[in-house]
Amino acid sequence: MTQLFEPVGCKVDLQTGAMSDATGDYQKRFRDLEGLYADADAFSAMQAEWNDTVVYEVSEFRPNERSGDLIFGVTRMLPGKVGTEYFVTRGHIHRQADRPEIYYGQKGRGLMLMESPEGEIRVVEIDAQTVCYVPPYWIHRSVNVGDEELVMLFCYPADSGQDYDCIAKAGGMRARIVDDGKGGWKQVDNAGWRMRDAATIAALYGHQQKEETA
Amino acid sequence: MTQLFEPVGCKVDLQTGAMSDATGDYQKRFRDLEGLYADADAFSAMQAEWNDTVVYEVSEFRPNERSGDLIFGVTRMLPGKVGTEYFVTRGHIHRQADRPEIYYGQKGRGLMLMESPEGEIRVVEIDAQTVCYVPPYWIHRSVNVGDEELVMLFCYPADSGQDYDCIAKAGGMRARIVDDGKGGWKQVDNAGWRMRDAATIAALYGHQQKEETA
Repeated sequence: MTQLFEPVGCKVDLQTGAMSDATGDYQKRFRDLEGLYADADAFSAMQAEWNDTVVYEVSEFRPNERSGDLIFGVTRMLPGKVGTEYFVTRGHIHRQADRPEIYYGQKGRGLMLMESPEGEIRVVEIDAQTVCYVPPYWIHRSVNVGDEELVMLFCYPADSGQDYDCIAKAGGMRARIVDDGKGGWKQVDNAGWRMRDAATIAALYGHQQKEETA
Repeated sequence: MTQLFEPVGCKVDLQTGAMSDATGDYQKRFRDLEGLYADADAFSAMQAEWNDTVVYEVSEFRPNERSGDLIFGVTRMLPGKVGTEYFVTRGHIHRQADRPEIYYGQKGRGLMLMESPEGEIRVVEIDAQTVCYVPPYWIHRSVNVGDEELVMLFCYPADSGQDYDCIAKAGGMRARIVDDGKGGWKQVDNAGWRMRDAATIAALYGHQQKEETA
């Protein structure tokens, strides 16, 4: 008989963000996010207390990385701000940039901050029971704009891969999400952002171009 | 600027099983499921009351059917039994049989009944916050074994397609899920099931074989 991959049922714990039968997990600590926030002084001031704190973590189920398969998991983010700026994940575009991702809010109040290769910004608010579809080619980063943990499920094509440098090379994402002083959030410009040049943009769309001319 | 697909946030209503911003939906009524259950007399006896009742429905978001993209949505199933057999969906294998699917339980008590092309059976129980991974090549059907509606999210590769005949041609799935008389469920043999012949099995694995020799 053909050897098939065995079905599995993974139980998600909304309190801890853990998932049973995960094949892997990783944690990001406060210190890993140095350079991401506008207010470097505020970041430094927080380091004594926060440096080793796990600010977000991911449990994932990754059957393989074969084209046509799926990877899924759970992400849990602490609430907090660096200065007025809400806690963010590092963010990424898919290495195969034409791969999408879906997120499903389960607890807390967050948003997905997205940027096209050309620098268009989109924001989708994610509360419990909101599915956010991040279409192909959108750089994306999660932001916790609430005062409790943000827990979301995610699912993406197994051959997507992640490119984290894409954001750093542009000086961050074009928009930052900050406290609006009224219990909510607002989007402000990131003064350090640099538009990608034409070659970089073409490279991000490269996978599609290759496919289309194949 | 390159025309990108716009991000979207779809709100899931756990009470109605509806999803905002869906691109499509479909309903199955009791009468559409004739022939699926072991007890044809019990099915007939229920028709006067149940025939036009929507026993399950699906709201989906389908950006396109391009390889590498994703389709997701929500399914809502009524509770009930035909004789002792719990309500089921029609079930399918993916037309590209090497495509997986994930389900995420949100409300109610259900299970995923799975069958390999060779006739191996697997069952994964799905309660709220259980993610079920249906790996490539598994025929799958949802069963509501609870006494309230079963609501699940699903996500699968956009180029998967569905083959519904695969089950009918074999006389159903090899196992049926029936009331165990103690408030739970048990798996029993389907007397009408016929093993697939070697050519049919090879055809179900055909996509993989083609890929491997390409």
